[in-house]
Amino acid sequence: MKVSVLLGERYKNAPADCIVESQALMVRGGYIKQVGSGIYSLFTPAQRIMNKIENIIREEMDAIDGQEVLFPVVMPASLWRESGRFDSIGSELLRFKDRGNNDMVLGMTHEEAAVQLARDTAQTYTKYPFMIYQIQTKFRDEPRARGGLIRVREFTMKDAYSFHRTQEDLEEYYERCYKAYERIFARCGLKNVVAVKSDSGMMGGKVSHEFMLLTDIGEDTLVICDDCDYRSNMEAADSITVNDEKYPVEELSEIYTPNIKTIDQLCGKVGRKAKYFCKAVVYRVNEDDSHVVVFIRGDLEVNETKLRNYLGKEIHPAVDIDEDLLTAGFIGPVGISKDVKVVYDASLKGAHNLVCGANKADYHYTGLDLERDVEGVEYVSVAKAVSGGVCPVCGRRSLKIKKGVEIGNIFQLGTKYSEVMGLRYTDENGEQQTPIMGCYGIGVGRLCACICQESRDNYGPIWPKSVAPWQVEVCALRADEPAVKECAEKLVKDLEAMGVQVLYDDRPVSAGFMFSDADLFGIPVRAIVSPKNIDGGVIEIATRDKSVKVNVPMEEAIAKIKELLS
Amino acid sequence: MKVSVLLGERYKNAPADCIVESQALMVRGGYIKQVGSGIYSLFTPAQRIMNKIENIIREEMDAIDGQEVLFPVVMPASLWRESGRFDSIGSELLRFKDRGNNDMVLGMTHEEAAVQLARDTAQTYTKYPFMIYQIQTKFRDEPRARGGLIRVREFTMKDAYSFHRTQEDLEEYYERCYKAYERIFARCGLKNVVAVKSDSGMMGGKVSHEFMLLTDIGEDTLVICDDCDYRSNMEAADSITVNDEKYPVEELSEIYTPNIKTIDQLCGKVGRKAKYFCKAVVYRVNEDDSHVVVFIRGDLEVNETKLRNYLGKEIHPAVDIDEDLLTAGFIGPVGISKDVKVVYDASLKGAHNLVCGANKADYHYTGLDLERDVEGVEYVSVAKAVSGGVCPVCGRRSLKIKKGVEIGNIFQLGTKYSEVMGLRYTDENGEQQTPIMGCYGIGVGRLCACICQESRDNYGPIWPKSVAPWQVEVCALRADEPAVKECAEKLVKDLEAMGVQVLYDDRPVSAGFMFSDADLFGIPVRAIVSPKNIDGGVIEIATRDKSVKVNVPMEEAIAKIKELLS
Repeated sequence: MKVSVLLGERYKNAPADCIVESQALMVRGGYIKQVGSGIYSLFTPAQRIMNKIENIIREEMDAIDGQEVLFPVVMPASLWRESGRFDSIGSELLRFKDRGNNDMVLGMTHEEAAVQLARDTAQTYTKYPFMIYQIQTKFRDEPRARGGLIRVREFTMKDAYSFHRTQEDLEEYYERCYKAYERIFARCGLKNVVAVKSDSGMMGGKVSHEFMLLTDIGEDTLVICDDCDYRSNMEAADSITVNDEKYPVEELSEIYTPNIKTIDQLCGKVGRKAKYFCKAVVYRVNEDDSHVVVFIRGDLEVNETKLRNYLGKEIHPAVDIDEDLLTAGFIGPVGISKDVKVVYDASLKGAHNLVCGANKADYHYTGLDLERDVEGVEYVSVAKAVSGGVCPVCGRRSLKIKKGVEIGNIFQLGTKYSEVMGLRYTDENGEQQTPIMGCYGIGVGRLCACICQESRDNYGPIWPKSVAPWQVEVCALRADEPAVKECAEKLVKDLEAMGVQVLYDDRPVSAGFMFSDADLFGIPVRAIVSPKNIDGGVIEIATRDKSVKVNVPMEEAIAKIKELLS
Repeated sequence: MKVSVLLGERYKNAPADCIVESQALMVRGGYIKQVGSGIYSLFTPAQRIMNKIENIIREEMDAIDGQEVLFPVVMPASLWRESGRFDSIGSELLRFKDRGNNDMVLGMTHEEAAVQLARDTAQTYTKYPFMIYQIQTKFRDEPRARGGLIRVREFTMKDAYSFHRTQEDLEEYYERCYKAYERIFARCGLKNVVAVKSDSGMMGGKVSHEFMLLTDIGEDTLVICDDCDYRSNMEAADSITVNDEKYPVEELSEIYTPNIKTIDQLCGKVGRKAKYFCKAVVYRVNEDDSHVVVFIRGDLEVNETKLRNYLGKEIHPAVDIDEDLLTAGFIGPVGISKDVKVVYDASLKGAHNLVCGANKADYHYTGLDLERDVEGVEYVSVAKAVSGGVCPVCGRRSLKIKKGVEIGNIFQLGTKYSEVMGLRYTDENGEQQTPIMGCYGIGVGRLCACICQESRDNYGPIWPKSVAPWQVEVCALRADEPAVKECAEKLVKDLEAMGVQVLYDDRPVSAGFMFSDADLFGIPVRAIVSPKNIDGGVIEIATRDKSVKVNVPMEEAIAKIKELLS
């Protein structure tokens, strides 16, 4: 491929709305073009990277006995009504009517289609276990598209679904898929990927992991123990709080705290740190608008996913509070209305002599001892983990909080979909059984962006060899000189004859211009043919990561390139 | 891949609603599963065929300097408003609103996206010519989905768009693409493919060709000359009618023809053949409901596409006729109302002494001589070509009418999209120019179905080697016997080690059952390991097309298979 006819421009500067480095580089380098909010076209360099990533994924899915299939993008709503998700999922599921006025959806995930495909055919135990997967376009009507291909509305995804007779068999396969994912990300050249325990959310099921690229641009917060293997996303992370100080025992005493609304103000007023406060955080239940008050140690935050899971209900932070029930700013556990649901976080266990609201405007209590002053307190763990907190596995105070981007996920789904959609098989004894499912996703476009995010310098992406759009770029400086043209074209031809993918820059541009474009192309190996090099009988060979830059005799150029590519 | 775990069942009988052989075989063979009207999931054998077809297409598109890109499936309506097609295309374009209440469309073709991708980047003449293509899911809300993958609503398509500075350059590239298409279909193993001239329809542009698989199940009617290379679809076919008889000259005379409404009845009444009638066919113009009367020789039909193109207006056959203007059943050219548009087909030229309506209930004329009896007659060619008609190229009476399925098309688009969407480049003289475009499509799923339609017997598909889901099927009869199992597994392993794709049937089923499944898999070469064969020291090797069936010594099996695959 010649750069002169390659569609896509390289730009010196990124548009101002690029908030993420990989997005800026992929716009500047002529990889992607926005068509609408969260909707992109891909230029050839990006599409070639996508094809390579897809092939790596395909090989690894086939290696764990995956069967590649294809599900539709557009599905009848009836299928999603069978699972109940047509009604339970919000507006990220795009719904519309076809010309016959039938309700349809755009696939954002394909559990329903997978069960439908298996339903008439996996009816006997001899078929199990099996895994089917596809690589296909999906659409999720994201409210917050951002970061180029990092968070989009339309995306290419590999999604896989496995079907099992026993939980043990699912767990064994889940482990195989976990390892396949590690191989996929390693083969794509990613270094800082960790798998974290996650909350299964709307997918159903109990056990799930997210594969995260650790990066400051991540929107996910991860809890990681450097001393052991504990890794979790914040939503699923256990928080252990140890209150092992000697607390002086004091009486519960009312103090006058006029116009004091925040913990910070209160700390100043009473001269104590936030950890000695029993903080109230108020939520309302979506379905009936009732109040939930969480009491938690003053230096900690509520993990809303844990609270939601504990309550089994959707909740949201209370924006306004019913003043007949609660006195905003002065809510405390002693004497709180019996008409609100109260949750005590485990961080309060063992802590005494705390400051809390007095349920009366402009008053707080000091000296709170929950076990002494409140009847029947039961603790629930709903606090967010914190940096330096206690690892729930190794018990050391070694937790770190990091940011990550999710590039893959694996779920043990259980029978959520097979049960309601009527997928059954006959076992050895002629009994009807419901298969247990797993599902496994990788966003291909996001993976591409993440590779760029991790592997780059100030000048452009440094594509790993396994996914680079081309393997070698031949730069002909002054291709208008016959000797340069001849030498460069021979090199291109010889490399292509060996099966090497070559991008050939023969444009009449300056060396500086050509090299800054080459940095944006990010191709692993570069060969520079120029009048000066030809006079010296050499070709300059350099790597994109700037680790190698040598002049080699012309006849050794191919061997050197092969060496650098291997 | 083992048949025992392969998802998808084979069935003895096809569902009653299968009207096309390929559809019946692909349902019976476990290739496709309907999800909704015109929407299918593909099982692994079909997806493997699709991947192979896509790779053939990709190689041939790359070989004519194509740049693979990816456009979105979901596009903002604003893009389609730029071209005017958001309003001009009917309900086959699926429109909907996203969560932000923005109008969106599902891509059924991607001219707009291609121009949008090129618009900021192909701004100088040095970039031209170039061709970009994608292989992607499309959705067209077809009212009449039929025949399995033959006519669907959601489909995988290769669509390509080329951009040129001159018409000559477009024509040269068009010819290259034409040849690439011939190579693609040949490599996919199709034999009866012809390219026909076609009407460009809603795509715009002037010259276009459709690549048609000749098959009785086709919905397209083709006009083909066996004596020369003339090939056209019916819509675009020229019709030449020669009236070289000696017609007796007679007076225009009124005859009483009560209750005679059809040409057939009239033929009987006046004792003459249909070709001696001047038939009236009435249409109404969509936009203003006005009448158009076409006079045409009684034995011919009107080609509505040609009429539409001549009028430059959308029309439809008149269901009811304004009786104040026209006397239905008795319409003729003499004395017809001046308030209707009249079109004379060229088939009437040179014909004399005709029978026609008298524009009066229950009366016809005989002895019509148009040039004599009607003032200012001008002829237009709007008749359908007929079998045995005159070839417009070689002039012989050699036209044949055949049925075909469209598997690809190529269009010279001209500047229809580049003009209105503001794609411009600067030429050598610094002038702004509008590029000329071509576009080129292949439906991948339909191609797969067409291969099955053409290459099959009563027992199943006979997949050509180039696209077969696997290359070899190893059938182990009595895999429960250790010697059989060992021999079959070694064969599978040895073949796979050589890079051969193997389907391995190790199920404990009868030979008849296994072989009828194997016929439905349609894999080119079959190797049968059985107790009897092992006793004889042989493996039976057979081809799916039943042309080869031999016992070869075990140690020669691999060599024989290689020979058959090459």
